Amino acid sequence: MADYPPTVRELLAALRELPSIGPRSAERLVLFLLAETGGTKERLARTLQAVGSRVRACSRCGFYAEEEHCELCRDSTRDPLLWCIVASPGDVLRIERAAAFRGRYHVLGRRLSPLEGIGPEQLPTGPLLARIEREHPREIILALGTDAEGEATALYLGQLLKKTGARISSLATGLPAGGGLEFADSVTLSYALAGRREL
Amino acid sequence: MADYPPTVRELLAALRELPSIGPRSAERLVLFLLAETGGTKERLARTLQAVGSRVRACSRCGFYAEEEHCELCRDSTRDPLLWCIVASPGDVLRIERAAAFRGRYHVLGRRLSPLEGIGPEQLPTGPLLARIEREHPREIILALGTDAEGEATALYLGQLLKKTGARISSLATGLPAGGGLEFADSVTLSYALAGRREL
Repeated sequence: MADYPPTVRELLAALRELPSIGPRSAERLVLFLLAETGGTKERLARTLQAVGSRVRACSRCGFYAEEEHCELCRDSTRDPLLWCIVASPGDVLRIERAAAFRGRYHVLGRRLSPLEGIGPEQLPTGPLLARIEREHPREIILALGTDAEGEATALYLGQLLKKTGARISSLATGLPAGGGLEFADSVTLSYALAGRREL
Repeated sequence: MADYPPTVRELLAALRELPSIGPRSAERLVLFLLAETGGTKERLARTLQAVGSRVRACSRCGFYAEEEHCELCRDSTRDPLLWCIVASPGDVLRIERAAAFRGRYHVLGRRLSPLEGIGPEQLPTGPLLARIEREHPREIILALGTDAEGEATALYLGQLLKKTGARISSLATGLPAGGGLEFADSVTLSYALAGRREL
């Protein structure tokens, strides 16, 4: 039984390392890449290498950067004393897209997760506390998610950070925008009831 | 509003050139690639470049090759006088996986398609006829698909190739294996009836 040439098989194997790319998707991508002559292969190869060699974590906040500090930390129009702590660099972009926050971020990198063996000792709070010591934020918003890991991490950090004197808050839990009650699960509804706002 | 660093945006754009990769899939892949440290980026970049520079069409049959001739054309255990004409190199692999054909292939490259402006003049029959002239196949099986383009191309090629003296046939149309009648559409059923075999 014939198969792809060795080089193509290696590309197939590399594509299979990507998330949600199964054998069929990988083969469809390979057939496209073998047929195309518009330079997609070369552009992909070049940008993959560039990302691997140039992109790193901002030494201050942990977001993606191509220099010592990221675009956000270099932006002097942002409030340096209002912080938002998130779990991953992708979360920074999600909040940025809401266009409702003009402060600085701190990317924690991981959340408490007993199942994955991440306890309070494994949580990288050292760099966070050192940065707070240096920069003295006025307010810190915890945006760590509303699943078990997010809630546990927020609870732990909330207690830890209270000593710093900053105002600590967490994102509101409630009904998502743009939908009727029929789209909300009962846990979300109970949070929305508990957090009701007077009009 | 902050965004990814420029290099990451270029990788996002390159990924979007791939089929069935939309903005969300591209972003998920990028977030994975930014986080991974196992060398996936480098392996992908290297294999993409290798495929671009090393893989070409077999000068005899048109299948993928890394040398002048492909693995299939170099395999002397295959019947050189039994041919199968397919539309694309991917079709060669599909037939190989059925493990029911031990002859040689010829990749046509395109099929008749009035909608795409591909008429008989645009069909690359020149190299096919020249190869038949050189190699004198005994039998030629047309495996061009059962959609309108496939049927039209088979009809046209069938008439053209009859003059060569080779036996010309086309893949059987009928019920797919492993399913009841409820899974077959009426056109397939009518073909299956017309092509019924005596037991």
